[in-house]
Amino acid sequence: MEIFDRVITGVSYYPEHWGRENWKTDIENIVDMGMSVVRLAELSWGVMESEDGKFNFDWLEDFIDTAGKKGLKIVLGTPSEATTVWLRAAYPEIVRVDEAGIRHGGRGMHCHTSPVFRFYTGRITAEMANRFGGNPHVIGWQIDNEFRAVDCYCSACRHAFQVWLKNKYETIEKLNNAWGTWFWSQHYNSFEEVELPALKEVTISTSQILDYKRFVSWSTVDFQSRQIEIIRRAAPHQFISHNSLGLYPNLNMYDLARDLDIMAWDAYPHVDEDFVNMAKTHDLIRAAKHGNFWMLEQKNGYFNGSDYNLAITPGLVRAWGMFDISRGANGVLFYRYRANRWGQEQNPNGILRHDGSKRRAYFEIQQMNRELAPLSEKLGKTTVEAAVALIHNYDDIWSAQAKKQYTNFDCHKLEDDFYRVLLSLGITPDLIHPEDDLSPYKIVIAPNLFLLSQKTADNMKRFVESGGAAVFHIRCGQKDTGNVMVDIPWPGLVRELLGVTVDEFEAFPDHMGNSATYKGKTYPIRWWADVLNPDTAQAEALYAEKFYRGKPAVTARHVGKGRAVYFGVAGCRELIGDYLGDLFRDYGIKTIRTPDKVYITTRKNREVSYTFIINLGTETKEIDPCITGTDLITGKKIGMTVQVAPLETLIIEHQ
Amino acid sequence: MEIFDRVITGVSYYPEHWGRENWKTDIENIVDMGMSVVRLAELSWGVMESEDGKFNFDWLEDFIDTAGKKGLKIVLGTPSEATTVWLRAAYPEIVRVDEAGIRHGGRGMHCHTSPVFRFYTGRITAEMANRFGGNPHVIGWQIDNEFRAVDCYCSACRHAFQVWLKNKYETIEKLNNAWGTWFWSQHYNSFEEVELPALKEVTISTSQILDYKRFVSWSTVDFQSRQIEIIRRAAPHQFISHNSLGLYPNLNMYDLARDLDIMAWDAYPHVDEDFVNMAKTHDLIRAAKHGNFWMLEQKNGYFNGSDYNLAITPGLVRAWGMFDISRGANGVLFYRYRANRWGQEQNPNGILRHDGSKRRAYFEIQQMNRELAPLSEKLGKTTVEAAVALIHNYDDIWSAQAKKQYTNFDCHKLEDDFYRVLLSLGITPDLIHPEDDLSPYKIVIAPNLFLLSQKTADNMKRFVESGGAAVFHIRCGQKDTGNVMVDIPWPGLVRELLGVTVDEFEAFPDHMGNSATYKGKTYPIRWWADVLNPDTAQAEALYAEKFYRGKPAVTARHVGKGRAVYFGVAGCRELIGDYLGDLFRDYGIKTIRTPDKVYITTRKNREVSYTFIINLGTETKEIDPCITGTDLITGKKIGMTVQVAPLETLIIEHQ
Amino acid sequence: MEIFDRVITGVSYYPEHWGRENWKTDIENIVDMGMSVVRLAELSWGVMESEDGKFNFDWLEDFIDTAGKKGLKIVLGTPSEATTVWLRAAYPEIVRVDEAGIRHGGRGMHCHTSPVFRFYTGRITAEMANRFGGNPHVIGWQIDNEFRAVDCYCSACRHAFQVWLKNKYETIEKLNNAWGTWFWSQHYNSFEEVELPALKEVTISTSQILDYKRFVSWSTVDFQSRQIEIIRRAAPHQFISHNSLGLYPNLNMYDLARDLDIMAWDAYPHVDEDFVNMAKTHDLIRAAKHGNFWMLEQKNGYFNGSDYNLAITPGLVRAWGMFDISRGANGVLFYRYRANRWGQEQNPNGILRHDGSKRRAYFEIQQMNRELAPLSEKLGKTTVEAAVALIHNYDDIWSAQAKKQYTNFDCHKLEDDFYRVLLSLGITPDLIHPEDDLSPYKIVIAPNLFLLSQKTADNMKRFVESGGAAVFHIRCGQKDTGNVMVDIPWPGLVRELLGVTVDEFEAFPDHMGNSATYKGKTYPIRWWADVLNPDTAQAEALYAEKFYRGKPAVTARHVGKGRAVYFGVAGCRELIGDYLGDLFRDYGIKTIRTPDKVYITTRKNREVSYTFIINLGTETKEIDPCITGTDLITGKKIGMTVQVAPLETLIIEHQ
Repeated sequence: MEIFDRVITGVSYYPEHWGRENWKTDIENIVDMGMSVVRLAELSWGVMESEDGKFNFDWLEDFIDTAGKKGLKIVLGTPSEATTVWLRAAYPEIVRVDEAGIRHGGRGMHCHTSPVFRFYTGRITAEMANRFGGNPHVIGWQIDNEFRAVDCYCSACRHAFQVWLKNKYETIEKLNNAWGTWFWSQHYNSFEEVELPALKEVTISTSQILDYKRFVSWSTVDFQSRQIEIIRRAAPHQFISHNSLGLYPNLNMYDLARDLDIMAWDAYPHVDEDFVNMAKTHDLIRAAKHGNFWMLEQKNGYFNGSDYNLAITPGLVRAWGMFDISRGANGVLFYRYRANRWGQEQNPNGILRHDGSKRRAYFEIQQMNRELAPLSEKLGKTTVEAAVALIHNYDDIWSAQAKKQYTNFDCHKLEDDFYRVLLSLGITPDLIHPEDDLSPYKIVIAPNLFLLSQKTADNMKRFVESGGAAVFHIRCGQKDTGNVMVDIPWPGLVRELLGVTVDEFEAFPDHMGNSATYKGKTYPIRWWADVLNPDTAQAEALYAEKFYRGKPAVTARHVGKGRAVYFGVAGCRELIGDYLGDLFRDYGIKTIRTPDKVYITTRKNREVSYTFIINLGTETKEIDPCITGTDLITGKKIGMTVQVAPLETLIIEHQ
Repeated sequence: MEIFDRVITGVSYYPEHWGRENWKTDIENIVDMGMSVVRLAELSWGVMESEDGKFNFDWLEDFIDTAGKKGLKIVLGTPSEATTVWLRAAYPEIVRVDEAGIRHGGRGMHCHTSPVFRFYTGRITAEMANRFGGNPHVIGWQIDNEFRAVDCYCSACRHAFQVWLKNKYETIEKLNNAWGTWFWSQHYNSFEEVELPALKEVTISTSQILDYKRFVSWSTVDFQSRQIEIIRRAAPHQFISHNSLGLYPNLNMYDLARDLDIMAWDAYPHVDEDFVNMAKTHDLIRAAKHGNFWMLEQKNGYFNGSDYNLAITPGLVRAWGMFDISRGANGVLFYRYRANRWGQEQNPNGILRHDGSKRRAYFEIQQMNRELAPLSEKLGKTTVEAAVALIHNYDDIWSAQAKKQYTNFDCHKLEDDFYRVLLSLGITPDLIHPEDDLSPYKIVIAPNLFLLSQKTADNMKRFVESGGAAVFHIRCGQKDTGNVMVDIPWPGLVRELLGVTVDEFEAFPDHMGNSATYKGKTYPIRWWADVLNPDTAQAEALYAEKFYRGKPAVTARHVGKGRAVYFGVAGCRELIGDYLGDLFRDYGIKTIRTPDKVYITTRKNREVSYTFIINLGTETKEIDPCITGTDLITGKKIGMTVQVAPLETLIIEHQ
Repeated sequence: MEIFDRVITGVSYYPEHWGRENWKTDIENIVDMGMSVVRLAELSWGVMESEDGKFNFDWLEDFIDTAGKKGLKIVLGTPSEATTVWLRAAYPEIVRVDEAGIRHGGRGMHCHTSPVFRFYTGRITAEMANRFGGNPHVIGWQIDNEFRAVDCYCSACRHAFQVWLKNKYETIEKLNNAWGTWFWSQHYNSFEEVELPALKEVTISTSQILDYKRFVSWSTVDFQSRQIEIIRRAAPHQFISHNSLGLYPNLNMYDLARDLDIMAWDAYPHVDEDFVNMAKTHDLIRAAKHGNFWMLEQKNGYFNGSDYNLAITPGLVRAWGMFDISRGANGVLFYRYRANRWGQEQNPNGILRHDGSKRRAYFEIQQMNRELAPLSEKLGKTTVEAAVALIHNYDDIWSAQAKKQYTNFDCHKLEDDFYRVLLSLGITPDLIHPEDDLSPYKIVIAPNLFLLSQKTADNMKRFVESGGAAVFHIRCGQKDTGNVMVDIPWPGLVRELLGVTVDEFEAFPDHMGNSATYKGKTYPIRWWADVLNPDTAQAEALYAEKFYRGKPAVTARHVGKGRAVYFGVAGCRELIGDYLGDLFRDYGIKTIRTPDKVYITTRKNREVSYTFIINLGTETKEIDPCITGTDLITGKKIGMTVQVAPLETLIIEHQ
């Protein structure tokens, strides 16, 4: 789609919140800021269908026409996240039931398997698509709003879960075998006996919980697919996206992305945070469709869901926008045009204040659009190309939710440690699915493969044999994808590849730990220690304390040019840093010592490269990007170490 | 009523807990302590109506006659807080339903809108009033016991809430407009569609929650009114009061006080606390009816609801009694005569132990009564006259409950900071309703006016124009009373009066803050900073840090002799102290440097003044009360700085 | 029973989890380790009765025969803890209802009063007993698994509670009097009006809660008795035991033990803990039947229910086994043979790993069995004989659950302080019921007798008059067994015996305390201070601070050779230590200065004594056991101070 090949900005607008008398000025302001796109209607069901079957889109069409005439393009949201009062009064069953069996609402907390909910959300979607599918100003759609995967325990969900299980396992005996139901007397005689893992259950299998979590994620994706089908039919030339929550753990982003034309997410960072999660989410969302993405909501003002709110530092809104673009965003839609006055969101979250006056963000966005205007076309055709991939494994996340096991075994923290090391080395990785094609990468790191499929094991083996370096981590391969412990020595399916056996382990409390030596230096180990017996692998780091002192903590096995590393320790970011630094050097991957809160990324294509350096901190920092080029913002030549001021962005064009 | 014009003491007694054989001795002891009043029957429904409609008041009348003959006066409590077992067995619906839809009891946790509950509580009240309305020993009544505002989510409450809303808004469109129901699709087609803000709701408006909180407070006051009507009819010459919880946030004390003859509250301080909340409650309860009040329960022994219990320091019971009187109590009834043996309250909470022996409290109360006897008549005719008022705003409390927003924006802490500064300056303020008559005061401080009505804005304007000084605080005027953000520049309706506009703000987390300079001194700011653009106002204090350094933090606008101050910072008690100290000096209000735990207050009338100085701490303290007079306890002349020993009370008579 | 007269070991095995192809090797391994006993079937209902009434025990009999032929003896568990899916689907009412009225499961969370549950658990028990009651390899039974006392609030439990109350109180007026229902209007007209203390209740008496807790414990014991009867009938020559949770507070271990042939418990210590709770549980379980006991589950690998898991230190499994035996275990069954792969328990908790390979535990158990083989017969006929008893009072535990009262009044902590002092002095006490025969003891310590029966008071009096020393503690005698405060001076029924009256008390918060002097030394007091007025007693320690400085904190009254001590302070382990040290010396009880984590105990009979010294810590420690003998492990002579290495066990034979 042509719109995707440029870098554009836009904004959320609610024509129904403000009198028509404001529309003209508001549209002029939007254009004046240099924006191209307006997002509408995503929570406006009550205005579009105020009574059952009584539709009113005239106001919306009027606004679209008015804005369209000024050159603005429209993205329409389907309104399924915020159902109407009359619908819930008539059909209380569309509201989620919690694990105690209590109806438990909250915005978006609907039963996504409910036929009633699917009927009514499908109907309003169809009505909208029929009305606007051919509208020349409407370029695309957003399905629903910030999908979470709602864990509903109603009878419709129980039925749907049983059907889902039947499709997966075919016979109840296969399910019994997969879950090991002889444990704790959980044997099922039929699929109809399988309950949801609710509070009333006497014994719940962790395999059952894992399948339930897969089912919940699947049912959300399936709910999205139904709306996509409807829109595709009526609006074949308009794109479809979703403003995802990004790192939200309960919804598989790879599945969610599959049917969408472009992936998107909503960013609400704190003013004083380090923005690592924002970067990580960019890297996940980009990899989910292996391409550029949009921000459908980028915070520009005060947030409504936090313990504190700092004034937005002058320059920060522009810096956020640049940051989005640097990691692959081609569209940045700010949330929202004017601050909302009612209900749960009353902080000044608009580019305009409640009283309609302009905040600093107005002028910063305007400035950013002016700076980007000459670049928009060329930049829009570049992408981020990662040499390093980090495997992001929903099976491990959900298995840990099914049973957390240990305070200091937290798959998010494990992933985070590796990710932060990559940032500090100036590396922008892709966050990929374990079964993704690994051939584009030189190095693949798998912080979490507690659950390991044969397909993933083969994928990694092929990668190593082709010359790649694969870094495996503690606990990998100990479970099959049914969440059952394997009955072969650890690390299970990759034991031969790694050439090492795990003998025993320690999951440390806060008051204990160990240490390991690597190349003569000693590093603290705080969370986990696997005691290793190498077979064909060589020891890389050794334990320095306790009864297994001298045993390997990290091993590597060389397979031609490839390498299979077992990293048997966790809670040791310093050791990860030094070890990965050496590994990257061996593999010819350039590393750049990057200070905290400074972000460096390159977007490129065959013709040109743009290296972004952005300082999101409050102090000037020094960095040597190891390239020669011209900063397109200031026009300065860059040849070696540069100083980057707080909230400064450099866009260095080079070959 | 004559009894209100004297200072008297009394005690709670439960004749039904102890054999009649104890009555004689117990009454003699009560008289021996110098008490005049006995409180009876407030939790005794089960004994008075052991089966539906089978009443038994003989035991009560017998006790009243026996006590009355010894000169004691009786206050009777209606027993509605503790319903009987048979009533709940027959009508489970009288018990509160919680927000999850689960029946959730606890003492007093009844549905106050339930017709069944109103019928049975009305009937027992009428039976009691008919029996004792003419009894010469009975002087008054206490309605129920320590009203909380029970947030019940049953169907009766839903119906009553809808009726309440219909009375308030008249048409559903007015409600839709007031709440802004276009936000998040919350549009209502009829009042019958409006639900209580329960767990099952998908979207709940903060306006809806605020109205629900008003409704809950109202329904409690309305429940009280029904009992008042019944008693007034049958007992027109007996007074009616209620033993309130004072600072309990969910019940509007001003509304509760309206129909009562005299306001009262129950005090259960910790032995080692600073007693600031006790003082503040005195100042609220006194202002709620603008007159003297009673203590219907004053702790004298161990408490039953706390994490620890220290022995009552010798002298402390007397000091508490004196403290109550100093701030406007004319009656002090101690809780309770003899320690209770059963159920939830088994600590030695009586003046007598469980075994009937006398604790020290017996002799301290006796001593206090002997000391007060010569003063009782004269003191009883004096009152506390405040020159400073502190606005206590339930709308702000409830709006914050509807959505807390920030950890460090806590309207109770904001109020507390100003109150503690007043205490440290020796000022006894009234805690008043925002629409109260302000003409008696020289200075009015409004820590919380986030929600500002036109009426209150006018009230404050009139006050300033008449020469008063009004101190407004952060966030004031940002919302209308519908809990909706205004669409005019902040501080909204008082912007012209204050001559200042709020540009932006910071709600700080614990790890951040700012500082401000005032008269050359720098003060830390920990919770909140409003960045101000003065128009007709002058800057009083300036920020010292961050990008808005040099911008005003506090402004003042002079209007004739009046002054309108905008205090744009919070979490800065030292700055408040110095600023208010200067303001009081300008307005000719005498301040007295008062150490922690020392309390100074004056009761007076046209003839005489009594200044109380009470040291509730454990160390001797020095204070200069700036008056000349005689201490009525010791007979000593007071002319300048005095030493006050731990738990010592001075009552200085002066002109 | 002959098996009880030897020291034996065994293991839990699940033939249904592993293919028959593994049985042969597994049995050979078990024999190879030197084990005698295998525990089977305790959570295997689903395999034994996969559909209602369709029983399948063939697999079980096959395994029993196979193992029996190799000389192994079998203990069978009844499977009632883990009900089948089909049973819960047909009868949802067998699952517990929580206090909110919500069905709330969890393993074992069944309604133990449910007739349906009793029918089906009775039937499967009878089927098993009929099938295996005559099996020559089966030596005994385990009822259910780790009984907790399930607090169920269903209608069946309400009915059963009312029946239980009727049996206890006979008439409702007796109940009204016992509970004091005139307090808070709780008067009952019939037993049918008495509710369970659920969330919906408006007023709940602490006496009602206490009786409910007694009822819940009783109903669990009664449920056990039903299974015992069934097994006794069908298997009169096989023993019956239960693998209890030991210190679990909600189930009266003395009642639970009554009908069993031998008491047992399950131990899952942390690797780095101090093992005090393990020792204490040994001393409770041993005293519950005044004899030796079995461990039905002794942890040997990783645990599944904790925040962390350390590798099992080499030698620790053997040390745990020795520790069990040293305090009275004659049987030690390790949990479990091979690590489980499915569901909630997936850590390597087996002697074998998931892959079937042997962990170190295999060889340690083998070593232990080789060491014990020559001793097994002689050691098995010795017992631990305690000179000191510590009273363990469920009434106090449950009364504190009914109302906790104070953060720092925790009956478990009070007991723990005394217990730890005993350990540090090398004393192994019995943890006894307050009404147990006290004549075997020289000293009886009662940390918790807040609730004191006349029978217990008489028991203690008799003991003191017979020359024993009884140590009473804070709060003793203040309540009757109905959980009602007495109306006589404190310490109530033992006031005359103690010769002291409690005047008042302080329950300290963390930020306060006092101190006391004893024999010229001053000790801190952190939790509690009773201010004492001695009558016939003499002061032993005096308060050093606050207004009651100089008043006694500890008193003693001498009655012939006997002594009655009132220990009026808590939170002062050092004072307890010095005071008890002196008391033991006076009573000729040998004390041995014992370092932390070193445990010394003696098992003996008329012929021989075996003193075990076990170091469960990580450092070598020195101890002088004050005996002369031979260490049976090393053959070394012991005559004075010995060094004990980490995880070393000495078994010193002496006279």
